Amino acid sequence: MQFADRLQNVETSAIRELFKLLGKPGIISFAGGFPDSALFDVEGIRAASQQALTDEPGAALQYGATEGYQPLREQIAAFMAGKGVTGLAPEQLIVTTGSQQALDLLGKTLISPGDKVIVEGPTFLATIQCFRLYGAELVSAPIDGQGVDTDALERLIVEHKPKFVYLIPTFGNPSGATLALERRRKVLELAVRHQVVVVEDDPYGDLYFGEAPPPSLLALSASVAGSRELLVHCGSLSKVLSPGLRVGWMIAPPELLAKATMCKQFSDAHTSTFAQATAAQYLKAGRMPATLDRVRAVYAERAQAMGDALRRDLGDAVQFVQPQGGLFVWARLTGAGGKATDGRALATRAIEQGVAFVPGTPFFCANPDHATLRLSFATVDSDKIREGVARLARAL
Amino acid sequence: MQFADRLQNVETSAIRELFKLLGKPGIISFAGGFPDSALFDVEGIRAASQQALTDEPGAALQYGATEGYQPLREQIAAFMAGKGVTGLAPEQLIVTTGSQQALDLLGKTLISPGDKVIVEGPTFLATIQCFRLYGAELVSAPIDGQGVDTDALERLIVEHKPKFVYLIPTFGNPSGATLALERRRKVLELAVRHQVVVVEDDPYGDLYFGEAPPPSLLALSASVAGSRELLVHCGSLSKVLSPGLRVGWMIAPPELLAKATMCKQFSDAHTSTFAQATAAQYLKAGRMPATLDRVRAVYAERAQAMGDALRRDLGDAVQFVQPQGGLFVWARLTGAGGKATDGRALATRAIEQGVAFVPGTPFFCANPDHATLRLSFATVDSDKIREGVARLARAL
Repeated sequence: MQFADRLQNVETSAIRELFKLLGKPGIISFAGGFPDSALFDVEGIRAASQQALTDEPGAALQYGATEGYQPLREQIAAFMAGKGVTGLAPEQLIVTTGSQQALDLLGKTLISPGDKVIVEGPTFLATIQCFRLYGAELVSAPIDGQGVDTDALERLIVEHKPKFVYLIPTFGNPSGATLALERRRKVLELAVRHQVVVVEDDPYGDLYFGEAPPPSLLALSASVAGSRELLVHCGSLSKVLSPGLRVGWMIAPPELLAKATMCKQFSDAHTSTFAQATAAQYLKAGRMPATLDRVRAVYAERAQAMGDALRRDLGDAVQFVQPQGGLFVWARLTGAGGKATDGRALATRAIEQGVAFVPGTPFFCANPDHATLRLSFATVDSDKIREGVARLARAL
Repeated sequence: MQFADRLQNVETSAIRELFKLLGKPGIISFAGGFPDSALFDVEGIRAASQQALTDEPGAALQYGATEGYQPLREQIAAFMAGKGVTGLAPEQLIVTTGSQQALDLLGKTLISPGDKVIVEGPTFLATIQCFRLYGAELVSAPIDGQGVDTDALERLIVEHKPKFVYLIPTFGNPSGATLALERRRKVLELAVRHQVVVVEDDPYGDLYFGEAPPPSLLALSASVAGSRELLVHCGSLSKVLSPGLRVGWMIAPPELLAKATMCKQFSDAHTSTFAQATAAQYLKAGRMPATLDRVRAVYAERAQAMGDALRRDLGDAVQFVQPQGGLFVWARLTGAGGKATDGRALATRAIEQGVAFVPGTPFFCANPDHATLRLSFATVDSDKIREGVARLARAL
């Protein structure tokens, strides 16, 4: 059978092979990229799904508008208003089947084969593959603990004239980094100056541990003239409520939103109306603030436990910035004391010791830093985190 | 903003404009392509969703395998076995976000720009647009009341060497036609002789009114050596249970299924696990046979009412084959008695008279027959059907 040429641009994920090993009994996994299912508000979701079937059973189970279920669009607009995004009409967003579909629709709508797209190095693995399937040539912009280096970003924009720039500005995956406020303004100014579309992917921004992070690019765009017309914002309930609902959203300028809606019509017609009506009822019931408080507190404790354990057990063999939110510690092997410097080799030895993580290599679209590791603290309790880090120290 | 080149291959649907007029008060609509929400087994779905959250709340709300929720894959395999598909392992199918996504994944996996795909003339509108977005050049194969003309199909296969052939063999949309048994065998033989992939889209096959239709191409493939390796089968719960769940499936040869799974990973990660777990519980509870009996009986009565009314009120001004299943009457204006012969002009006049339908023109990817109409009897009760047809007669 002859497959489409576009499949030659991607390969089966290297970390898939690693994930097959996770079934080993007793393994402690820092490898996931998902929230802890023990924290799901099952009763809240149960009540919301029941209410959806009671209030509007026809609508909840019938075909729906490709743009999304209107009561959910209204609830999402209100949710965003609570995060400093003013003047957002429900019609300025569409509901997507998880924010992964928002990425897919951006690829389908914007990328012709050979187009350049700038992403952070490192960035979300499924973004790399998703855009490559549409023929994108990815360009890697360097980041540090304050997010993307905006001077380097501007040079890359000028050099490559990308179709768009894709960033995870807040608690990035895998970097955990948060773009500093002044850099956020700079990114918006760059968008306007070079008339380039910027995509803000924000699945983690609600998961902060202490102070709230700086306002989103979307919230800030109100203060940078002309930037809103060039900004796309992707959000999701996956990390804060439930990935299994597959409810995400995309906020974009009208013309782009219309094209993305047309593409969505031929991708999956619309997102599950049952899931959408459930999410709408959940938000309407006002349960989200308490849910956020609970998950933030748990993840904050686990992030602290992991940071403390890494500092104690691995010492100067690793460098990392203590995360202020999100799900991940992004660490770098320093080689101090003659210890390992290759995350891929360490991953294999770690599994032998009963602990798993994802090496950083595949998160780079170019020039990978093989000394990096992504460690998720989200799904393991603090005692197990300490035990897992102790095993990691033995592997090292 | 510059969009991807692929968007130049599609246009916003002509019938979208028509649909905007459907909000007119008192209109009787034969224009839909959806099941009647009054027939949804709301209590059964409610019970299934509750059971899903009780039995496995973590799994129902967490990320899941891209291939699908295993208990649902097992239930679908059992459902297909009940329809004469023997020896189908759950691993030979993936769950898709409605069968629309199966079409999208086939496009992504198989179509390079410029590839030919043979479809029926007429065929499902969203298929035409979906494949064109991947750059397909569509070739139209003629059909009659017995489905696709297999002699013409063979000539087109030889001439165009298509990437695949897409058929809706049972109660086609919009044609309502069902491929005769001997033609089904012929299609499978053509697949083997010319080594061409055949896609069987089967959302309506369960909605028969009297005798069951001939076995699916998938069921028959067991008796045509070598055909199973070239056959893709798309199914869905949308027309028989609920479109809002967005649960469909694709059965395909292993290599194609693996590639489609990879593409799905970057399209929406997986189909809503909440919807999948609900569907699995519904099928497991054994409610589907009674649900099918009920919807078949209602649609059978409505199809009869529409056929009788068309014969009585429009007489020889229309030709059509009385449907034996599905949701649609496909009719052709004959011009007898100097009556209208253009479905598009009639559609506008019909709305003025308070009845809506979809003209047949957009369902053809080439050489449209403008005299055709698609009339859905699914969502209107028999009295209203008679009134709607009387209005149509006035418009004519």
